[in-house]
Amino acid sequence: MQKKRKLGRGVAVVGAGMSKFGMFRDKDSKDVFAEAFRDMLASVDKGLDPSDIDALYLGNFSNDFFIHQAHWGPLMSDLIGLVPKPATRTEGACASSALAFREGVFAIASGFYDMVLVGGVEEMSKRTTEEVAEGLALATVPYEGEVGFTFPGVFGAVATAYFAKYGAGREHLMNVTIKSHNNAPLNPKAQYPFSIKDMMQKKAQSAEKKGQPVPEWEDEKAFLGDPRANPAVAWPMHLFDCCPISDGASCMLLVSEEMAGNFTDDPLHVIGIGQGSGRGFHASDSLTSFEATRYAANEAYGMSGLTPEDIQFSEVHDCFSIAELIHIEDLGFFKPGEGYKAVEEGLTRLDGSKPINTSGGLKCKGHPVGATGISQLYEVWTQLRGKAGERQVPSNDLRIGAAHNLGGTGGTCTFTILERR
Amino acid sequence: MQKKRKLGRGVAVVGAGMSKFGMFRDKDSKDVFAEAFRDMLASVDKGLDPSDIDALYLGNFSNDFFIHQAHWGPLMSDLIGLVPKPATRTEGACASSALAFREGVFAIASGFYDMVLVGGVEEMSKRTTEEVAEGLALATVPYEGEVGFTFPGVFGAVATAYFAKYGAGREHLMNVTIKSHNNAPLNPKAQYPFSIKDMMQKKAQSAEKKGQPVPEWEDEKAFLGDPRANPAVAWPMHLFDCCPISDGASCMLLVSEEMAGNFTDDPLHVIGIGQGSGRGFHASDSLTSFEATRYAANEAYGMSGLTPEDIQFSEVHDCFSIAELIHIEDLGFFKPGEGYKAVEEGLTRLDGSKPINTSGGLKCKGHPVGATGISQLYEVWTQLRGKAGERQVPSNDLRIGAAHNLGGTGGTCTFTILERR
Repeated sequence: MQKKRKLGRGVAVVGAGMSKFGMFRDKDSKDVFAEAFRDMLASVDKGLDPSDIDALYLGNFSNDFFIHQAHWGPLMSDLIGLVPKPATRTEGACASSALAFREGVFAIASGFYDMVLVGGVEEMSKRTTEEVAEGLALATVPYEGEVGFTFPGVFGAVATAYFAKYGAGREHLMNVTIKSHNNAPLNPKAQYPFSIKDMMQKKAQSAEKKGQPVPEWEDEKAFLGDPRANPAVAWPMHLFDCCPISDGASCMLLVSEEMAGNFTDDPLHVIGIGQGSGRGFHASDSLTSFEATRYAANEAYGMSGLTPEDIQFSEVHDCFSIAELIHIEDLGFFKPGEGYKAVEEGLTRLDGSKPINTSGGLKCKGHPVGATGISQLYEVWTQLRGKAGERQVPSNDLRIGAAHNLGGTGGTCTFTILERR
Repeated sequence: MQKKRKLGRGVAVVGAGMSKFGMFRDKDSKDVFAEAFRDMLASVDKGLDPSDIDALYLGNFSNDFFIHQAHWGPLMSDLIGLVPKPATRTEGACASSALAFREGVFAIASGFYDMVLVGGVEEMSKRTTEEVAEGLALATVPYEGEVGFTFPGVFGAVATAYFAKYGAGREHLMNVTIKSHNNAPLNPKAQYPFSIKDMMQKKAQSAEKKGQPVPEWEDEKAFLGDPRANPAVAWPMHLFDCCPISDGASCMLLVSEEMAGNFTDDPLHVIGIGQGSGRGFHASDSLTSFEATRYAANEAYGMSGLTPEDIQFSEVHDCFSIAELIHIEDLGFFKPGEGYKAVEEGLTRLDGSKPINTSGGLKCKGHPVGATGISQLYEVWTQLRGKAGERQVPSNDLRIGAAHNLGGTGGTCTFTILERR
């Protein structure tokens, strides 16, 4: 039985920003973080004097490895003019910036600081795909990496176990991919802002141009089932089951609840912050559920007094299509073994009863690992404030959204619930 | 003018542990962290059920680089049986675990958690000296690393500037080294538990054994001035001005003040927690002072209501002998340009008016970078609780001790003040 946790002082979100995600030859970590910071500044309704920021928390997985530079806290503090204010880097693999968010919440709830900038950044595209795979494998547990398990392999094993246990198949993974790719064109900051249908058309046009035989696919699943269009990476994970290599940054401005009115009449309130840790799969009791996610979810639900039914929409960590199915079950949105049916029925679509990854998810929005956690919360901010444009969740009373972030092979998981009042 | 900060809920230290520091062929990060954890368990006067620990914060600079493994939060959480409790890694170069300590304080002061384990670890000795230098350079700012500035070079420039500004010389650096090496034999966990005189004797004996001419040095300074015994690394930094390459771990148990009595009748109270960030030297206004240290010190003094005179003893970040001189001035213990005179007069000795680095400091105790911050606080704990044995600061009323930790070339600095009541 987990204890029910609460904060001694309420914390509100009054600004949020995100860079375009993508693979940028001509932009580095500082460029994308500055882009996210400027975007955040513009989002603060009543304006902000950046010199009022008390501290910075920055999530980064391993720019140490990717671009041979560590110690990013003070580099970013300098970039945005915060020196000599404190700057702390957090790392929890792909959940690094969700940890930064949480530490920012604690720093304010403790009474020590009143206004904290939290953010994340990663610069991955300067390395080859093989090098990125090597870098990401730093986040697996030693027993996994040593036997050659890179991430597609790990999640391939998860999918295989899920299929065997619940009778699902590749077509159910395709449903996840198709859904995320339908949301992505509606998100101007997404790395891959196109639907699977767009992609089919593009491939056909390209073949026509080159005078090659024009491929014809009956529908999206036929395309995703065609190994020339969607080759296997680690069965059953194919190319379109896997998130891309990305560069990008994200940030949010947190203040004490009592101060929020100075910055906006429409703040979001941090009502649930859960985090858990997990073992490698060699020591886990299940291949189809993450203990750390369940713990994080219980902590956040306990703090908020809410149940999974109360969460109106959520970003979840779809590093691979199968991961989305696992998470929507672990978070209690759907029963174990029912997630793939819910997706098939369209419940997780933008117009479904429980929209999941309206941003396009890691799959389409991109996954600059250290930036992802707060970019998910940026989507929650955007939706709850009614600024999501064409991808706005259709509701007259959108009040509660959440984000789930996963690091490594489930070693670090967070679940964060925001409320608009 | 810095704001005066305070915590909404008091935090106490009720346990602390540290592994032996050294270069271990046969011990890895898990081994030394387990050693520190067991040491901490034994230190809790009234005992502890480890399953009551709510969360872990772990400082690590770059095991990513040193041993090709990142994401240490959950690995350590698993090691000590905390899964699925949350585990967060903090990184601020050589100040990584002082940041872990601070986040643990915030997590409790926020009211969210009641008992948090904070610790640090680094495993450096499996790499060659050249590789370690490359790894540490990840923590410098790009402008420094790119022009070939490794750490001895940076601090050599600092020393040169200090000499030029204040009329000090190499003999004053030697005073720091001799003092630290006098403390080290009294610390059973130190990597180099010998005095400079011990070393002189050893060198003489070794020469005699080999039938070589037996060197004779008039005193310690003659030894340190002999380039065969103490070669230059980056002038004026010689071998004995530089801290070693180390492996090791440290940890502390934090609880809310109201709970402290369940664990000990003699807790320490966290009365000052300061942190600052700094620019690289190319953009700094001074080569002989760290802005981030001054900011951190002001924050901690402001919170505690104390002045530098009230700090009875302190650990400071002597990665190089010159750094100790800079810090004892930046922290306000001595006026700018007076630090080297204070050391010369013996004021910073164990029996002086302001003992500095009673542990032997980074120079002799060792510097496994991610473990250092909390190992400094471990020394403060040991001294304040009267358990420092032969190196106990001689006082009938030892109540206030502090630790200063520096990351990179001043990018991240902390200052932490503990009180025994």
